[in-house]
Order: sequence, then structure tokens, then C-alpha cells
Amino acid sequence: MHCGECAAEGKIGSPNEAAIRLIWRQCLSRVLRAAAAQMGPTQRADTRAHTLDRMLKLLDAAAEQGARLVVFPELAFTTFFPRWLLEGDGLDQYFERGMPNPAVQALFDRACALGVGFYVGYAELTADGRRYNCAILVDDVGEIIGRYRKVHLPGSVEPRAGARYQQLEKRYFEYGDLGFPAFRTGSAWGHAIMGMMICNDRRWPESWRVLGLQGVELVCIGYNSAAYDPNGGTSEDAALRTFHSTLVAQANAYMNATWAIAVAKAGDEDGSGLIGGSCIVDPNGRIVAQAKTLADEVIVADIDLDLCRQGKDKMFNFAAHRRPEQYRAITERAGVIEPALPDMD
Amino acid sequence: MHCGECAAEGKIGSPNEAAIRLIWRQCLSRVLRAAAAQMGPTQRADTRAHTLDRMLKLLDAAAEQGARLVVFPELAFTTFFPRWLLEGDGLDQYFERGMPNPAVQALFDRACALGVGFYVGYAELTADGRRYNCAILVDDVGEIIGRYRKVHLPGSVEPRAGARYQQLEKRYFEYGDLGFPAFRTGSAWGHAIMGMMICNDRRWPESWRVLGLQGVELVCIGYNSAAYDPNGGTSEDAALRTFHSTLVAQANAYMNATWAIAVAKAGDEDGSGLIGGSCIVDPNGRIVAQAKTLADEVIVADIDLDLCRQGKDKMFNFAAHRRPEQYRAITERAGVIEPALPDMD
Repeated sequence: MHCGECAAEGKIGSPNEAAIRLIWRQCLSRVLRAAAAQMGPTQRADTRAHTLDRMLKLLDAAAEQGARLVVFPELAFTTFFPRWLLEGDGLDQYFERGMPNPAVQALFDRACALGVGFYVGYAELTADGRRYNCAILVDDVGEIIGRYRKVHLPGSVEPRAGARYQQLEKRYFEYGDLGFPAFRTGSAWGHAIMGMMICNDRRWPESWRVLGLQGVELVCIGYNSAAYDPNGGTSEDAALRTFHSTLVAQANAYMNATWAIAVAKAGDEDGSGLIGGSCIVDPNGRIVAQAKTLADEVIVADIDLDLCRQGKDKMFNFAAHRRPEQYRAITERAGVIEPALPDMD
Repeated sequence: MHCGECAAEGKIGSPNEAAIRLIWRQCLSRVLRAAAAQMGPTQRADTRAHTLDRMLKLLDAAAEQGARLVVFPELAFTTFFPRWLLEGDGLDQYFERGMPNPAVQALFDRACALGVGFYVGYAELTADGRRYNCAILVDDVGEIIGRYRKVHLPGSVEPRAGARYQQLEKRYFEYGDLGFPAFRTGSAWGHAIMGMMICNDRRWPESWRVLGLQGVELVCIGYNSAAYDPNGGTSEDAALRTFHSTLVAQANAYMNATWAIAVAKAGDEDGSGLIGGSCIVDPNGRIVAQAKTLADEVIVADIDLDLCRQGKDKMFNFAAHRRPEQYRAITERAGVIEPALPDMD
């Protein structure tokens, strides 16, 4: 995506950041072809090798369509294990002790050979024994250029009595400790400013805004979202939950003038349903591509990063229009404080 | 909506707030029939009396359909005057020096006689000369129970050279100084917790979250939104801008588990177009009623306030799931700070 003429004239070496940005916009193609690699279900009995083979096939299919970036789901290498009450080795088998590691090296190797980078989510077990629901961003030459640990862990610490399927993320993971960092990528991706979320994060506008305040142009999100109310209610079905998932990606992309790629692990995992609906959303909040199945499926779109400018420079020119002095409740407390009750005496 | 039995047993007199809330939920009907009173265009030459007569007709139509709450647009008594460069009396004619005042008293009187309350937006000129883009909430017996002054003023202080239509809200109004207060309403409205926004506020998730952190159950919003890019661009048309308007109401209602009523002044005002699309949105983000015209039009829906509980108690249980320590950028700064540029040397 380099513009040879500008580089030859030495303009890009200028210390003036505004000038550099202007040159990029004028002289670089800032269109990045990207893919959402939705995955169908992964059963507890599936081998790692079987799952990795599916991911390689998705990677190949995306590369054949010209994608330079492929977004995989949350916890992509395994089933969504927080639905089960587990301990010891039964739990540890789902965690990665390093990244890459021998079980996933083939994904890194194939991507690098193809000149394709990727986002992938996995369960991280650090050398000092900490556990996170994690995602990484790997560039087109196989370097890990960004890491994110899930902040908005849903579910509960203790299992719900009598429930066939649990949601135990609060039991198995610590809260992410890296904030919501945005990353400046290289020339293969048009120097896009990219950010990551994982699943439930996308329902919280704070996640998006912290990235928006870093000028994010493309947000990558992997998810495993139940096709029913994982908290035990009966008022939410797969259609409603898919609607919620798509709605929050669309509106938050618009309100932060960013592209978003949201990618599901979908379908029936050992009797427990996951929604699909993986989508690529433009900075106007419009869906430009969406998966149609609950299976392994690649969708591709051309991400024109400069389409973010209309929103970022006008309606959502944050410096001109935001009023942080009115937002203090957002950071001063977690929970609700209702207005006083009327006097009933 | 009172439950006579509980009152007779003295339960509502209990000092235990949690118990009172539980009794409300169990014993009160918390279904409020509410209306969006979309207004068609108001020309500069239209008289105040003509416009007020239209509002009375909308009020009557809503009351005939059983509505106990009617939501009118932003700056409902006048044309959207910030599109014009004005000064002196030419500007002052659009401002209200008191509320109610003789020019609008008939609206208060008719509403009180009908037992209907309302939200209405207007330009406020205070006794000490301050100017705000304001909205009030008037209960079913004609009392002003809430006031809000617009925080997110769009547009510019200086007129844009060569533009036929301006957006001069930043010139004519001060930034709202009341925060985003939520109000506990009376028994006629099921003791709903209500909040207000004005127009552009609805595009900013912070507005919604500050209300959400007060347990808001119904957000009333009036708007005048251009059917083109008011900042001078050409990439946004009426369809896209109506989509944006509806999208942000839907997603922010869902993310805060609240009902929302968003009401336009619509149509062609002196050659400048305004979108319609007034809508009533449920706490799942679903549109339950939407205006079909760009003219005076009433839409009505039954607002079951307890539908908010599913979201507030589970997915969006803020106390359980929000992580304010990760949100600090939201209140620490207004504008964007991009990640560092790569080293180009």
C-alpha cells in the first residue's frame, strides 16, 4: 500500500505528524480486504488437530478471496468450555500456556506464508498462573502486534444450581488488565488503527468509546453467544439474541466512526446453542457482509479506512462536541443509584 | 395504577425501599400508554398560535387513544431557527422567558384537563440572560417535574461561509448545566424513572449511560435532524440519517435496558429538510411503533416498565459487570489521542 513517489521525495520522513497523516490519506490506498472466519460448533470430544484443520481451511478460503486480515472467534481453538463446571486437568486442557505453541503453530506458519494476518481468541494461562480470556492480533508477517484480555466477563463464579449449562467465565478468568489498547498497524493494513474486544465487551459502549478515543478505525471482535438466555430466563431466543448482537456492533461502530468485524463461533455445541450472525459493519453502522449459516463460513469485505473520516471529523468530532464533565458517573461508580422514592407517609 | 389493597394494608408506608419496589412490581400496573407527537414542519412565517393549535390537536388525538404521556419534539413551538444567522429581536422571538407563559398556557391547561402529561422542548432565556436548548417534563396534573438543558450542542459558533443553511446551536445556546438527571414520576405513570435528552444527545452513548446509572426506564427525546449533512458534506442523505437516528435509539435503549420515545420535527422548513422516523423503542431495542410521514402524526404504545427488569437484572446488571477502572479515558479527556506513528526513519 506504499506510495513510492512520496517515499522517494522523502515526505514520509517528515517529523510533522499532521503532514504524515495527510500524505497517507492522499497517497496510500487505505483499503484493506478483510474476512470474518465464522466457525461452526466445536464439540468437547473434537481434537485440537481437527479444529486447527478447520481454521486452516477458513484461512485458505479467505486468502483465496484476497483477504489480508482474517478474524476468528473467541476461544477459537476449543469448545466454549465455560458452560461446564470443570477443575484440574479437565479445565487446564482448554488453556494455552504460550502463543504460538506447537498445537497452533501451523496457523501462524500458514498465515505468514500467505501474507495474511489474523485476530484469534483463546484461553491464556500465564507463566505465573494467571488466566485470561484473551485475543491477539498477528500481522501479515506472523508477529503478534497486539494483545487484549477480556474486561467484561459475563456469568457467575458459582454454578447455577440445576442448570444444565453454566456460564462460568467469572470463575475461570480474571478481569482483563490491559485496558482497551488500540494499535497502529503497518503498511500492509494501511497503517490502520485497530482495536480488539471479546464477546460481551461489544454490548458495553464504554469498550467502544475507550477505543474511539484512540481514533480506532477497525474493531475486531470474536464471540460465543448463547442462543438462549444464559442467565436462566426464557424471554430471549436465538433471533432476539442475534438481533442484539448485530445491533450493538452497528450502533457502536457508527457512534465511534469505525469499521467493525464481529465473528461468531456458532451452532450446537454438545446440545447448547450458539448464535451466528457474524458481520462486517461500516462506520455508518451498515452491515456490508453477514454470515448466513451456523457453520464454518467466510465472509469478506473491502474496508476503506478513510470512510471513518466523515464521522470522526464531523458528527463525532470528539474534541469539539464531547462534554466529559457531564460523564462523571460513568467512571465514579459501577452500579445503579436510583432517584429517591416519593414520600409515602 | 394504585393497588388499593396494598395501600390499605399499609405496605407502601414501609421505610424499606427494596420492599416498596417489590410491592410496586407485584401490585401496581406498571404499563404506561404513551404517545410520540411528531410534528411536521414549522415555517418561519408561521404564527405561534397556529403552531400551538397543531400541538393541541396532537395532544387531543393522543389522549383519545388513551395516552397518559405525550412526547413533543425539540424546539417544538418554533421553526428550527439555529439554521439562520440571527441577532437581536430576530433571535429573541424564538426564546421563552418563562414556562409556562401566555403563548403556551393553553397546552398546559388542555393537558391538565385531559390528565395527560408531556415532554416538550423549547429555547429557554433565563431571567439573568442565559440561553439553553431546554426540555421539560410535565406531569398529568400540570406540574413541571423535570427540566433538562441540552449538553451535546452540535454545529458551530461562527456561520459557515457560503452555506445557505447554518447549524448555529453553539452560537445561540450555552452548554446544559444540569447534567442528565433522572426523575421518579408519580403513580399515574407507574412511578417510572424517566430521563430526557434533546436531539444530538441521543447519538452519544454517555448521555444514555448517565441515565442508565440512575436506573432509567423511559427516555424521552425530541429532535430536529437535518435530512442532509448539516456540516456541509454530501455523503449523507435522508435515508441514511433516518437510519442513524433510529439505530442509536434502538441500541442505547437495549444497552441501558430502557424504553425510549424519540420524536421528530420533520419535513421541509423553508427549503431545509428534516428527517422523520419518530419511534417508540422497547428495552430489547425493538421498534414497537414508528411514524410513517413527515407531518403531524401521533403514534402510541403501551410501555410495560417492568420489561426493563430482564436487562437491568441480568445482562446489564451494572454493579456485577461494569469495570469503571477501565473507562477512565471517557472522563479524562474530550478528544482523540491516536497511537504513536511508526518510526519512518
